[in-house]
Amino acid sequence: MADYPSPRAAVLRTKEYHPPLGARDGVRLDFNENTFACSPKVLEVLGGISRGDLTKYPEREPVERLVASHLGLHAGQVLLTNGVDEAIHVLCQTFLEAGDEFLLPVPTYSMYEVYGSSTDAKLVCVQAGEDFAFPLEGLLQKITPATKLIAIANPNSPTGRAVPREAILKVIESAPHAMVLVDEAYFHFYGHTVLDLIDHIPNLVVTRTFSKAYGLAGLRLGMLAAHESQMHWMRRVISPYSVNGLALACLPAAIEDATYLEWYVEEVLQGRDLLIKAFQQRSLRYWPSEANFLLVKIGAKHKQFVSAMRQRDVLVRDRSNDPGCDGCVRITVGTLEHINRGIRALDESLAEIRWSPNED
Amino acid sequence: MADYPSPRAAVLRTKEYHPPLGARDGVRLDFNENTFACSPKVLEVLGGISRGDLTKYPEREPVERLVASHLGLHAGQVLLTNGVDEAIHVLCQTFLEAGDEFLLPVPTYSMYEVYGSSTDAKLVCVQAGEDFAFPLEGLLQKITPATKLIAIANPNSPTGRAVPREAILKVIESAPHAMVLVDEAYFHFYGHTVLDLIDHIPNLVVTRTFSKAYGLAGLRLGMLAAHESQMHWMRRVISPYSVNGLALACLPAAIEDATYLEWYVEEVLQGRDLLIKAFQQRSLRYWPSEANFLLVKIGAKHKQFVSAMRQRDVLVRDRSNDPGCDGCVRITVGTLEHINRGIRALDESLAEIRWSPNED
Repeated sequence: MADYPSPRAAVLRTKEYHPPLGARDGVRLDFNENTFACSPKVLEVLGGISRGDLTKYPEREPVERLVASHLGLHAGQVLLTNGVDEAIHVLCQTFLEAGDEFLLPVPTYSMYEVYGSSTDAKLVCVQAGEDFAFPLEGLLQKITPATKLIAIANPNSPTGRAVPREAILKVIESAPHAMVLVDEAYFHFYGHTVLDLIDHIPNLVVTRTFSKAYGLAGLRLGMLAAHESQMHWMRRVISPYSVNGLALACLPAAIEDATYLEWYVEEVLQGRDLLIKAFQQRSLRYWPSEANFLLVKIGAKHKQFVSAMRQRDVLVRDRSNDPGCDGCVRITVGTLEHINRGIRALDESLAEIRWSPNED
Repeated sequence: MADYPSPRAAVLRTKEYHPPLGARDGVRLDFNENTFACSPKVLEVLGGISRGDLTKYPEREPVERLVASHLGLHAGQVLLTNGVDEAIHVLCQTFLEAGDEFLLPVPTYSMYEVYGSSTDAKLVCVQAGEDFAFPLEGLLQKITPATKLIAIANPNSPTGRAVPREAILKVIESAPHAMVLVDEAYFHFYGHTVLDLIDHIPNLVVTRTFSKAYGLAGLRLGMLAAHESQMHWMRRVISPYSVNGLALACLPAAIEDATYLEWYVEEVLQGRDLLIKAFQQRSLRYWPSEANFLLVKIGAKHKQFVSAMRQRDVLVRDRSNDPGCDGCVRITVGTLEHINRGIRALDESLAEIRWSPNED
């Protein structure tokens, strides 16, 4: 079969990312989605869509202007994307080429590696310590003239750890020749941003998503913001129609309904405290999180635990294969009702697998 | 400003594709969309969507299986994409690297060049003759050991010309070391396909879209089919969530409603005949088309013509900048009602610009 056309060398070494979806009935504490619903205003917009509306190619720019204005940015600084995944993809494709290095503190969001490794650049990973705090010193040491992109998820996934603003600034200053991505997918559960720096710092890129707090993962809506001098490169790479028309129609209603967003975020913050207390009472090791999830160490029986939870209709995510996360499981925090169901299932599952605090 | 991170060399030479959308009120004969509506069954599905549904990451595979079965293919041979644009993007990114050549008969669909030029491969264009027939001999002469991808739109845009099956087979045989894309975006208005060859030919890729006949351009639904041995490379490059959840929810209903599709296609075929007669009566030069549009030569006053049509609320597309298309305008064929409005506006516009058959 040597005659078959072969893919690029980079594709040969890329792993296929295959999320464990399928049969997700039950309480969804596995993908850091909003576990309940989006704003009712969004459904009202959907109800007003006509058959003719669906025939039209989507037009991103008017909604981009609205999002920019909502965030206090200029329209030229904002690009709406097909989920934050497309933002990462576009960023990698715009800047990374053969000879470049893509610097990644790990563990972190899987898609940086997926999109990075399908470019011709070299991935350079910096392992965080046992506390999963941002490995600033290790990262600074790995910056070279070849460094072209650095990805910082803030808060990070799957750990939930936040990165101090000073650390981000230090990275930006130390690598003026590299783009620094600050991925604020979980911003609403944390409250701190570097979006205010976009105007002044030409090597900063900030991404956001409407998949988490806004509860619109199904619509695929992400966003990338950067200094205007960099945006036109990324506009060359992105498809003009990558964000679908229904997403664009719904987004204004989602943004306007601040009351709903605040309610959901408050549910998550209370739920996060409840889950932390549950971990503490059971002597489970966990990491402080500023996001809508918590990473917890189950130890050797992590697979049995995930399976026992599933039998109780509560889906959680095994993260044991993430670098440094041996035996860890990530639990999304949703509404109080959902997190209470999660805690009941946790109790029963720990009992079923005969877990003891000495396990890990 | 020399310190700013600079994009890849390929991005520096890529043009930004900026479709002339914006204020598209009127009869839309400009983007080859369905000019009327999608199936009413699709709107029924949208009406049943809940707030909770929108919170979930989309799951492509079950709908991929359904589409594959509808087309008589195996699930492993089909990839759903975020519009056919993503299919082209994924194909370019999977196969094209530095040293490769991307062979393109022109004029053709703009996005091949956009996505091709953002790779490190070299674009090699083969100009069609005045009749815009597929330049088979010219193309065969340009095949080299470096040829890695050849894109054939069948029917082609913006000309509407079809490519004979024998010509496609000849290209496939002459370049076994290259992937040959046959883009069947306008299949439903033509009726001939090479999808039946997927099983046996490992260097063939066929794409389709649900944006045209099905009237779902707003949902962003495309499709790529190839031999199973090639599909896993492309699955490594595509995002797992690139097709949105509402598109996936609606697609089965659209596929099942064959009656609606047949009605719309029949309207277009009748409308195409009407428009051809109108061109003939007015001695306008046009090209035979197997798609839902016709390319017509207006000549030096092409801009005035497009503007005169717009004043009559009929949008058409200036294609004068396409290679070999000097003075040409593309007119989408929609429902009979829309095409009759188009023909009335054509008469008035030709009169307004004082067009005469000697213009071009």
